[in-house]
Amino acid sequence: MKAIISVMLKNGVLDPQGEAVKSALGSLGFDGVNGARQGKLIELNLADGTDPADVTEMCKKLLVNEVIESYTVDIH
Amino acid sequence: MKAIISVMLKNGVLDPQGEAVKSALGSLGFDGVNGARQGKLIELNLADGTDPADVTEMCKKLLVNEVIESYTVDIH
Repeated sequence: MKAIISVMLKNGVLDPQGEAVKSALGSLGFDGVNGARQGKLIELNLADGTDPADVTEMCKKLLVNEVIESYTVDIH
Repeated sequence: MKAIISVMLKNGVLDPQGEAVKSALGSLGFDGVNGARQGKLIELNLADGTDPADVTEMCKKLLVNEVIESYTVDIH
């Protein structure tokens, strides 16, 4: 089974990578980019039967800094 | 409108970040993590009416290195 974890900085948290993307797209002539934010995408290849609660635990313990980041988990 | 761009390293391309995640999860006692890969998630806030072809162009010109990365675009 696979777990896809999407991690984004919370709204209001400064995102220099996103700002750099926005400004670079503007320099390349792409108008209409009002904002850009960049996050992480983690794809875990898990043994069958892994408890989904374990994935949440992995996020809380290692993969996500819940103070500044929000995340979603998609297991299939 | 929003565009969510998911960028992952192609299969076969060495992914040190993913390897680090896998090994760290193992050290924390999470068994059954057979593999981990880490990619980027870019969220663009676009002016209404932006041509979806423009988003593909942004990916090709700036956001994605198509030699080693694959990507998907989700516009809504």
